[in-house]
Amino acid sequence: MKHKGILIVVSGFSGAGKGTLMKQMVRCYENYALSVSMTTRMPRPGEEEGKEYFFVSKEEFEDRISRDGLIEYANYCDHYYGTPREYVERQLERGKDVILEIEIQGALKVKRKFPTAVLMFVMPPSVAELKKRLEGRGTESREVIEKRLKRACEEAEGIEQYDYIVINDALEECVKEMHSLIQAAHHAPVRNEEFIEKMKKELSELK
Amino acid sequence: MKHKGILIVVSGFSGAGKGTLMKQMVRCYENYALSVSMTTRMPRPGEEEGKEYFFVSKEEFEDRISRDGLIEYANYCDHYYGTPREYVERQLERGKDVILEIEIQGALKVKRKFPTAVLMFVMPPSVAELKKRLEGRGTESREVIEKRLKRACEEAEGIEQYDYIVINDALEECVKEMHSLIQAAHHAPVRNEEFIEKMKKELSELK
Repeated sequence: MKHKGILIVVSGFSGAGKGTLMKQMVRCYENYALSVSMTTRMPRPGEEEGKEYFFVSKEEFEDRISRDGLIEYANYCDHYYGTPREYVERQLERGKDVILEIEIQGALKVKRKFPTAVLMFVMPPSVAELKKRLEGRGTESREVIEKRLKRACEEAEGIEQYDYIVINDALEECVKEMHSLIQAAHHAPVRNEEFIEKMKKELSELK
Repeated sequence: MKHKGILIVVSGFSGAGKGTLMKQMVRCYENYALSVSMTTRMPRPGEEEGKEYFFVSKEEFEDRISRDGLIEYANYCDHYYGTPREYVERQLERGKDVILEIEIQGALKVKRKFPTAVLMFVMPPSVAELKKRLEGRGTESREVIEKRLKRACEEAEGIEQYDYIVINDALEECVKEMHSLIQAAHHAPVRNEEFIEKMKKELSELK
């Protein structure tokens, strides 16, 4: 069964551990490529240009929008976030599964443009754990934490539109689980159209 | 994450090896229960009452229909085939994943009644292999084999309505794969409504 690369969109509450999960996915399995988003927000301590994000100015971002150089973009907490198009398309053509981390507005836009994309929503095992993780990070002010919790509340309304939910309790377990969900997604008919067409053609020739 | 049992519908071309696959699923993993269908067709050599099927008369079958005792039923190659309701519902309540083998008409009826059912379509790796397996079985006349191939041709038109396709090339591999697809299905939001509702409620109480 020939598989082409598929687009994996990972969303989830801030503090659910998406970033670590995705880095670990790429480290543990060969077939994944990580799309690096572009943003106009300031880097957090420890974040590197081109690794967590491409950090650009508002002007540069808007220029990219006007040249149709982004698969999707959105405005979240007063900053732009977007997915540069070229890298994603090149990796998919090479047969890689490309993982994007984007919030819900962007995820739904991607699903409309790429109906075969797989949408995964990462959650902590409980709301108490979510709150603990956000507070434990220690890099954000109380005000930002509350904004993120409020945002989580809004995002939760969209969970039903995702293909899979993933509970990030223990990292290694969760990485295996995500891998196995992506493998499952490769078995959907919509991602095997070539194989199905071939089978139908051969069957009709038997008659 | 609390999981309730889900209904797994397995269809596929006659000769794809569904029967063997499903018996092996129940043997290898604890959480599956196999639903035994009811039919008015004659037993094939080696088939036992209550194992492959419950073999009943046309009158008995029609009586069961009139008492709403079947989840679905269909007429295929001049015989009735149906799924007795009681066993399936009891197992699902106990938290078991219940596997049904039914053809496409029935599968789509089940999906309408149980929207959270998972539909899997089993195929041999190629049409040549399908033909070989049907001929190799040696229990059917040429006429029946041709009828089944023609039927396969019709069934192939419905593959897109299934959730997953499964290629049965090597049995053990395929059993593992099916198990893993079912595990993935448990991660869909529609099968985790309780968990999601709880999460939403707790989040809204934080505000």
